[in-house]
Amino acid sequence: MAKRLGKFTINLTNKPKIISAYSVVGKKEGEGAFKNYFDHILKDDRFGEKSYEGSEKRLLEFAITNAIDRSKKSFDEIDLLIAGDLMNQITSSSFSARALNLPFLGLYSACSTMTEGLAVGACLTDSNCINTCAVATASHFSTVEKQFRFPLELGNQRPPVAQWTVTGAGCSVLSNTQTTNYLARVERVTFGKVVDFGVKDVNNMGAAMAPSAQFSIVSHFEDTKTTPDDYDLILTGDLGKLGSEILRDLMEHAGYKLGANYADCGQMIYSNDQRTFMGGSGAGCSASVFNSYMIKKLAKQELKKVLFVATGALLSPTSSQQGNSVPGIAHAVYLTAGSNESLKTGEN
Amino acid sequence: MAKRLGKFTINLTNKPKIISAYSVVGKKEGEGAFKNYFDHILKDDRFGEKSYEGSEKRLLEFAITNAIDRSKKSFDEIDLLIAGDLMNQITSSSFSARALNLPFLGLYSACSTMTEGLAVGACLTDSNCINTCAVATASHFSTVEKQFRFPLELGNQRPPVAQWTVTGAGCSVLSNTQTTNYLARVERVTFGKVVDFGVKDVNNMGAAMAPSAQFSIVSHFEDTKTTPDDYDLILTGDLGKLGSEILRDLMEHAGYKLGANYADCGQMIYSNDQRTFMGGSGAGCSASVFNSYMIKKLAKQELKKVLFVATGALLSPTSSQQGNSVPGIAHAVYLTAGSNESLKTGEN
Repeated sequence: MAKRLGKFTINLTNKPKIISAYSVVGKKEGEGAFKNYFDHILKDDRFGEKSYEGSEKRLLEFAITNAIDRSKKSFDEIDLLIAGDLMNQITSSSFSARALNLPFLGLYSACSTMTEGLAVGACLTDSNCINTCAVATASHFSTVEKQFRFPLELGNQRPPVAQWTVTGAGCSVLSNTQTTNYLARVERVTFGKVVDFGVKDVNNMGAAMAPSAQFSIVSHFEDTKTTPDDYDLILTGDLGKLGSEILRDLMEHAGYKLGANYADCGQMIYSNDQRTFMGGSGAGCSASVFNSYMIKKLAKQELKKVLFVATGALLSPTSSQQGNSVPGIAHAVYLTAGSNESLKTGEN
Repeated sequence: MAKRLGKFTINLTNKPKIISAYSVVGKKEGEGAFKNYFDHILKDDRFGEKSYEGSEKRLLEFAITNAIDRSKKSFDEIDLLIAGDLMNQITSSSFSARALNLPFLGLYSACSTMTEGLAVGACLTDSNCINTCAVATASHFSTVEKQFRFPLELGNQRPPVAQWTVTGAGCSVLSNTQTTNYLARVERVTFGKVVDFGVKDVNNMGAAMAPSAQFSIVSHFEDTKTTPDDYDLILTGDLGKLGSEILRDLMEHAGYKLGANYADCGQMIYSNDQRTFMGGSGAGCSASVFNSYMIKKLAKQELKKVLFVATGALLSPTSSQQGNSVPGIAHAVYLTAGSNESLKTGEN
């Protein structure tokens, strides 16, 4: 039985295991900081599809299929696919679930889907409601930009606070299996609240999401009586350069100093010469970084205690056009390192 | 600890309780078959808001607030709001979560959100990951029709297979509390698969969703070794008149005859003289019917064993315009009657 810790945190009893992971990214992401860690880099972001929506769906399906293959589980042993994406009505996820013929739990949490999914999947596997699930999300530059901002063909100039939507997908397979070969364990989860500081600039996602990251991280610290020093890494999703600076400020106001053990997937995914301004964003940003570099570091025990906090901006084109501000959400998942056996075999 | 039953079903150990429920509907729905059962009927579907999106959000927030008030729990005791809706990026749910300041798990499962939410909420409360949650969804005729089909101002003629999107919202509060005063219990849940028989007519939702309902109901029967006779009521979400006829046929092909104990919320919600053709649809359809008439029947022990299977069509305007067919999904929740104390007090 899981136990509540403090007001917002769930302490899992059996610490479900991530038994496999897979990441796939587009060409631009494959030239960035993590190029040696992604499992697959596309040569062409169309991925052989006629529409970009088709490409995004194929990206997601590709990540899920490969993660399940790596898990050595058959598709029949996957009790649930937990997935969501940024497309209207999460069609990338639904259509992937259709193609893969898996029981499906559809989520929407914008760019925080990876940790929302890991949190739900960890709770469900911890309690034996399900034994094994695949948790996945994706985004594609060419689907997201046209849906949320402008047609690509317009060639709009991007403002300096803009982030670049990551073309990429990631999938983790979570299980309550007894295996001693695993990449990481999920120990605790904190579901976030929707926080809104009134940011109305749909290009400035980092500023819109930073307050929700602060809420979830501070809640997690308070509930678990920990401080930043208790973690090897505190990793946010896609706050980008500006958003992660804002988060540092907000955390300092709350009495916590984030040091060198704080990083953000969006800030890191592109190299400085790639002219993406504030860095990467999109559900595929934290999903691809977590399921490549981060999971490998956890499996190798080079990171032992990671608080992973993907962040999402809960706007829609309609909500923005009607003058609403951009609310943010962040879900926190506390992970510990992989097993010694995984360290030795290094299969993932 | 929950136990897996067969391939797809979860048998909950502690049988979480629905401790309160609330329904609110629009004017037209308030003139239909369940007019004496809804908790609140709007006089004006705008609900005092400037945009219909605002109205839908207010509907949802209204249902959640009133359900929580009835539960006698404080907002601080609600560990999670589990909600989703049909709007792009589920803004009705996110904006409600913002207003209510509750930890938020965003779902997308189209019109099957009520049972997806109940299933997730039941698993999370059963395992003590959370103690109490509010599960809610909503739809509004004027937001959904314009988003998925045509601007209302066009006054398009509706084809004979069309259903009418319900303006309504429903919320159940689920808890693992020890109280002996509850309206119903959740015993078992079956997460559905995405099933697609190739229907491309975006007006014929019933036909698109019926095969997924068949999958979930048959899976639930097989896993639990039950037949239709074991239930007082098998209740689908919004298949409508045509879709529920198709489901009866499909079930018969699978070897199960659905008799008089089968009903569909969409088929029943409007009276015959309301000219809604195949009946009601929308996430608010099964949510408002379940959280009014059905939950009252369970609380009064007039229904003792209900298999509730809300159905969703996982299309988006983009997916349809790109020529894709309409996949369906259905999640099944098996509920048993309320307590004798609830029967006596009859508070809900």
